[in-house]
Amino acid sequence: MNTYKAIVRYDGTRYKGWQRLKNTQETIQGKIETVLSRLVGEEIEIQGSGRTDAGAHAMGQVFHFKTEAVLDHATIMAQINQYLPEDIALVYFEKASDNFHARFDAVEKTYVYRLWKAPYPPVFERKYVAPYDCSKLDVEKMKLAATRVLGEKDFKGFCTDKTKKSTVRTIKRVDIRTTKEEVIFTFVGDGFLYNMVRILVGTLMEIGMGTKSLDSIDRVFETKDRSYAGFTAQAQGLCLLQVAYPHK
Amino acid sequence: MNTYKAIVRYDGTRYKGWQRLKNTQETIQGKIETVLSRLVGEEIEIQGSGRTDAGAHAMGQVFHFKTEAVLDHATIMAQINQYLPEDIALVYFEKASDNFHARFDAVEKTYVYRLWKAPYPPVFERKYVAPYDCSKLDVEKMKLAATRVLGEKDFKGFCTDKTKKSTVRTIKRVDIRTTKEEVIFTFVGDGFLYNMVRILVGTLMEIGMGTKSLDSIDRVFETKDRSYAGFTAQAQGLCLLQVAYPHK
Repeated sequence: MNTYKAIVRYDGTRYKGWQRLKNTQETIQGKIETVLSRLVGEEIEIQGSGRTDAGAHAMGQVFHFKTEAVLDHATIMAQINQYLPEDIALVYFEKASDNFHARFDAVEKTYVYRLWKAPYPPVFERKYVAPYDCSKLDVEKMKLAATRVLGEKDFKGFCTDKTKKSTVRTIKRVDIRTTKEEVIFTFVGDGFLYNMVRILVGTLMEIGMGTKSLDSIDRVFETKDRSYAGFTAQAQGLCLLQVAYPHK
Repeated sequence: MNTYKAIVRYDGTRYKGWQRLKNTQETIQGKIETVLSRLVGEEIEIQGSGRTDAGAHAMGQVFHFKTEAVLDHATIMAQINQYLPEDIALVYFEKASDNFHARFDAVEKTYVYRLWKAPYPPVFERKYVAPYDCSKLDVEKMKLAATRVLGEKDFKGFCTDKTKKSTVRTIKRVDIRTTKEEVIFTFVGDGFLYNMVRILVGTLMEIGMGTKSLDSIDRVFETKDRSYAGFTAQAQGLCLLQVAYPHK
C-alpha cells in the first residue's frame, strides 16, 4: 500500500463541514473522496487532520489516504483540481511515509478568526469574516484575557463536546491584532476541541465588551462548565490556517 | 443644492459594469441610484469618477450627487448599506463643496491587476484574480517593458475606444510584484481609457512570455494601432483601488 499526503484549501460557505455524512454530498471530505475515487479507480477513504465546522474555512487542511495505486504528484494535482468544485483546491500532494497519519501525527494547528469591525459591511471578505459591532471592544483587555488560556489546561468548559475522551489541550500562542477594518485572532495549539476556537473568541469578545469579567475565564477552567463561557462566534469567521507535523 | 461625495466598494462579478444601462438593473450605478432615490425621496443621479468594466471590481470608486435634501452622514451610510446588496458597500460619505465633481476633479487613479500563477486554482480569491499559466513569465523583462509606458503619451493603441476625444494620458508609476501565488500589477496615472489597464497587462504578459518583443510597445505608440498591442486581460483580475483629488 502507498500512503499519500495532501494539503487542501476550501471555502466552507456552502458545505456542512469537513466530515463525510451519509445523507448529503455537501461535505468537503465527501467531495474529495468522490473525485479521488473516480480518478484512482477504487474506493478511497481520506483521513483529515481533524474536522472543521459547517461554514468554516481552511487554508491548509491536511489529509492522507492509502491506495495500491502508484500516483504521480503533478498529474493527480492537476486532475483532482479539474474535477473539484471551485471552492475546494488541492494545493499540495506527495507520497508520504507508509505510517504517516494526518490526525495522529499532527503536532500543532493554527486557526485564524476574523471579526469585521468597520462601520460598513465587508464586500470582498464577506464570506470569510464575522461582522460584529466592535465599537465597544476593549482589545487590550482581550489580549490580557487571552494570556489566561495559555498552556496545558482542561478546555471541557470551552467546547460543545459531550465526549468522554480527554479534553486537555495546550494552547501555545494567542495573538490578537487589529487592522483598520478587522480584529484578527490567531490561535496556535496542539489541538482544538469541537467549537473550541469559536467559544474562546466569543468569551474574549464578551470580556472585551465588558459583559463578562476577566475572572470568568478562570471560572470556566475551575468549573469546566460551558455556561460560564461566552457565546459561540459565527463559523464563517473561522479558518484552519495550517497543520504542522514533526520534521522527519 | 447640496453636493455629497461617497466612496463605494464593489465586487463586480455579477454586474454589467459601473454605468447605468437602460435595459438592465444589473449595473453598480443603477443599484446605487435606486437605493439612494428611495432613501432621499427624489430621483438621484450619481456621477462616478469614471466607468469600470463589466466584471471588474473597485475598492474605492468615488461618486458625487446633488440634492435639495440635507443628509446626515452616519444615518445615510447605515441606511444605504442596509438596502444595497452584499456585493456593494458604501465605505465613506460626506458633504462636499458645492462644485465638487467626482470625474472632472479626479487627479489620480490607482488600478490593481492580479494574475494567479500558482499551479492550483484560487479558492478565496477566485473572483478577484485572473488565472493564467505564468510558468514562462519573465517578470524582470516585464518590469523593463513597463518603464516604456511611463510618462505622458498617446495611448490610442492601448484602448478599445473609438472616441474622437484626446487619448493622451500620463502614467506615473507601474509596479509589478510577485507573491508565492500571484503577479500583482499596480498602475498609477491621471486617467485610463476604456480597457487600457487590461490591454497594458496583456501586452506586458506577452512580452514576459516572449511572444512579443520589448520594442512592440514602442510600435504601438508610434502607430497608435491596437493590433500591435497584446490581448485584453480578463476583467475579473482588475480592481480600481483609489481615486485621488487635490487637497483643499
